Amino acid sequence: MIQRTGIDKVLSGGSTGTTVTIYGWVRTSRSGKNVAFAALNDGSSVQNLQVVFDREAFGDESLAGLQAGACVCVTGTVVESSGEQAVELAARSLQVVGPVDTDFPLQKKRHGLDFLRTMPHLRSRTNTFGAVFRMSHHLSLAIHRFFDTEGFYHIHTPIITESDCEGAGETFRVTTLPAGCADFDQDYFRRKSFLSVSGQLEAEPFALSLGKVYTFGPTFRADPSDTRTHAAEFWMIEPEMAFYDLDDNIALIERFVKFCASYLSEKCAADIAFFSEHYEKGLGDRYRTLEEGFARVSYTEAISILGSTSGVFSSVPSWGDDLATEHERYLAEKHFGRPVFVTDYPASMKPFYMFMNPDGKTVAACDLLVPGVGEIVGGSQREHRLPVLTDRAVAQGLDLSVYSWYLELRRWGTAPHAGFGLGFERLLMYLSGMENIRDVIPFPRTFGKMY
Amino acid sequence: MIQRTGIDKVLSGGSTGTTVTIYGWVRTSRSGKNVAFAALNDGSSVQNLQVVFDREAFGDESLAGLQAGACVCVTGTVVESSGEQAVELAARSLQVVGPVDTDFPLQKKRHGLDFLRTMPHLRSRTNTFGAVFRMSHHLSLAIHRFFDTEGFYHIHTPIITESDCEGAGETFRVTTLPAGCADFDQDYFRRKSFLSVSGQLEAEPFALSLGKVYTFGPTFRADPSDTRTHAAEFWMIEPEMAFYDLDDNIALIERFVKFCASYLSEKCAADIAFFSEHYEKGLGDRYRTLEEGFARVSYTEAISILGSTSGVFSSVPSWGDDLATEHERYLAEKHFGRPVFVTDYPASMKPFYMFMNPDGKTVAACDLLVPGVGEIVGGSQREHRLPVLTDRAVAQGLDLSVYSWYLELRRWGTAPHAGFGLGFERLLMYLSGMENIRDVIPFPRTFGKMY
Repeated sequence: MIQRTGIDKVLSGGSTGTTVTIYGWVRTSRSGKNVAFAALNDGSSVQNLQVVFDREAFGDESLAGLQAGACVCVTGTVVESSGEQAVELAARSLQVVGPVDTDFPLQKKRHGLDFLRTMPHLRSRTNTFGAVFRMSHHLSLAIHRFFDTEGFYHIHTPIITESDCEGAGETFRVTTLPAGCADFDQDYFRRKSFLSVSGQLEAEPFALSLGKVYTFGPTFRADPSDTRTHAAEFWMIEPEMAFYDLDDNIALIERFVKFCASYLSEKCAADIAFFSEHYEKGLGDRYRTLEEGFARVSYTEAISILGSTSGVFSSVPSWGDDLATEHERYLAEKHFGRPVFVTDYPASMKPFYMFMNPDGKTVAACDLLVPGVGEIVGGSQREHRLPVLTDRAVAQGLDLSVYSWYLELRRWGTAPHAGFGLGFERLLMYLSGMENIRDVIPFPRTFGKMY
Repeated sequence: MIQRTGIDKVLSGGSTGTTVTIYGWVRTSRSGKNVAFAALNDGSSVQNLQVVFDREAFGDESLAGLQAGACVCVTGTVVESSGEQAVELAARSLQVVGPVDTDFPLQKKRHGLDFLRTMPHLRSRTNTFGAVFRMSHHLSLAIHRFFDTEGFYHIHTPIITESDCEGAGETFRVTTLPAGCADFDQDYFRRKSFLSVSGQLEAEPFALSLGKVYTFGPTFRADPSDTRTHAAEFWMIEPEMAFYDLDDNIALIERFVKFCASYLSEKCAADIAFFSEHYEKGLGDRYRTLEEGFARVSYTEAISILGSTSGVFSSVPSWGDDLATEHERYLAEKHFGRPVFVTDYPASMKPFYMFMNPDGKTVAACDLLVPGVGEIVGGSQREHRLPVLTDRAVAQGLDLSVYSWYLELRRWGTAPHAGFGLGFERLLMYLSGMENIRDVIPFPRTFGKMY
């Protein structure tokens, strides 16, 4: 075993006067007249431990190893500090475990995010990306805790699939055929297969047996868009609940988003303060608006609100048009000044599985729009009536043979149910203030780029 | 909102005399002389709620809707019960929400697992698969809780990748090229890309910055094997820890596996009892052996033990050979009678990233073998010395340009570190007693079959 003490343990105090051995990476170092200082981090704490070296005892040649980025092992005595932390380490021995070549790209100056994006294997050593990935972890845990507490079961829906839930057609094909071969009978699954764009369809049977379930896994879109919010590979949370209608769904979404924000406020206070200072001044406001009650408006009312607002938009939507991001943000930021659910969209705009309202024109959908970003959740009550569902699948040109098992759920014990999808990275962007999806994913996959 | 009370709430008592409306699926129903009974389940509880109908008041035509599998809505009064539960429901109204066609495949008799495998969208309505997927949920939560409590950060490593961590070559290719086209410059990522077989390589940079991290996501093997333990798509847990050597790694693995078993013992006692009765009589023993200390033996000693055991095996391994499942099980079941770590395998058998021992022949690997199954964990200290790592990558014929970022981790602040990989479904099989991997995955993907 490697004998060492975690820096978190040293900093948590109570060990003054004891001798400890620590391992860590040099964040910064400097030399005074008689002593040299190094700030060490081993990942166990956001905080660095200050280590003090007697220049005469160690000698300048030895202390030259304290370069930013180097990994060192130090044994010393824990003493009271007059600096930021309660304690510091008075070094007695120093060993450079992993030196740094002079061409180490992360030098002391602050680097641009676009520069750091070229080195996903190194950028997590910076303050910014340490904060991003710590928050990512806590958000992930918040999600699992919320659903566990609410009595949901976590389900692993398949990644390789033959259905295309959203009907968008922008799917990656998965194959073991040699390049150039198109004989799908010889392929691994003896048919054409794809990467899933959503686990919703496969989650529904589990809602219709276990009651409440959620997925939390990667989904894929082969979208040839190269923007700050598009990734080819991202993680989705997709809950499905039996005996839920649109109102139940909306109440759950609001409770869920509020829980995540509140959990992060508690676990990541220092990181939120860091993002507020360096990236998004309005981050505190985002957390505050999430504490208030969310607004709700039908799509039809929303179109009317936007139509009566002259001179603000590059184009005003008519009934049946998609809302653009400028419209979504206007509703959330200006008109309502808080998160708002837009409900009951025209059926023609939405997938076949959404519940047809009694008006025969709109479906029981609910999108959640938030200030600063726009849409972060899309959900709906699901169509549980077999004849209506079949008609809509046919009208949208789907191959019914691929969906036969999905339709069967409505033949045997069908029940009203609802669900939604939330993109993990977009929620993380919203709650951190990071503006490019490439900056919240460890190794982002985007159009034309592995990273 | 759908006005209803969850069956868990009704069963938890205290509501005798109140009127409630419940929704649920009929598990069984039968008729007595004056009354009819139906056992309803809504997924909120493992237990069913017994509902009693007055035959004269409801009429046989109405009660004919109480077929197994149908979804019904019942309003009634909660009354004390003389049956298994403390309370039952005296029905006042009945509505069949989702009837069951006569061809519903899940009839009352017990079905074989192979028959149920043909209907992954329906089998979670059975007692067996309800238990499997409830346990799957709790195991998943146990994993996240363990690592969160131990100070690990959860990392989403990429699914689409250009590296092949295990070097096994059995990868799925991911493409947006038209079938038959082999011009990879025109592909989505402008190069050949694959589904990841492991997130380990991409997790390592995060261990070398955040200290301790873990992945928990799907991995893929295009293995043309059609056995009870092979799936093309399965979920792996891959922790990586800075400043851990082989001994630290082994101690963590033991703590981790014990925590999972102990968590399930607490959360899934009824399901474990069910599996013990119907599937694996020795399940209680498995949980008990996990509570004891695990054994440890070097690969070299293991070969010597196996060599001195005559007449038991179809073949006796020599030093340098893989251990077959019969050898693994002999060590865990007969020789040690408990879970055992086998360490320090010949370097020639293991991937390039494992730490070379001072003997120059073996690497600091540790596999965990358990009674009844064989190997469930593979791990090692990682090679953190750049010259050694480069030599081994070259010797194994890897394309260094693909791994340049991985090698760079050893140029700038390298540190000793270790990690392991555990297959989620195999652990679930071990802890439930289910013997076919297809029976612990919602929609299994195996050779030649989507399910």
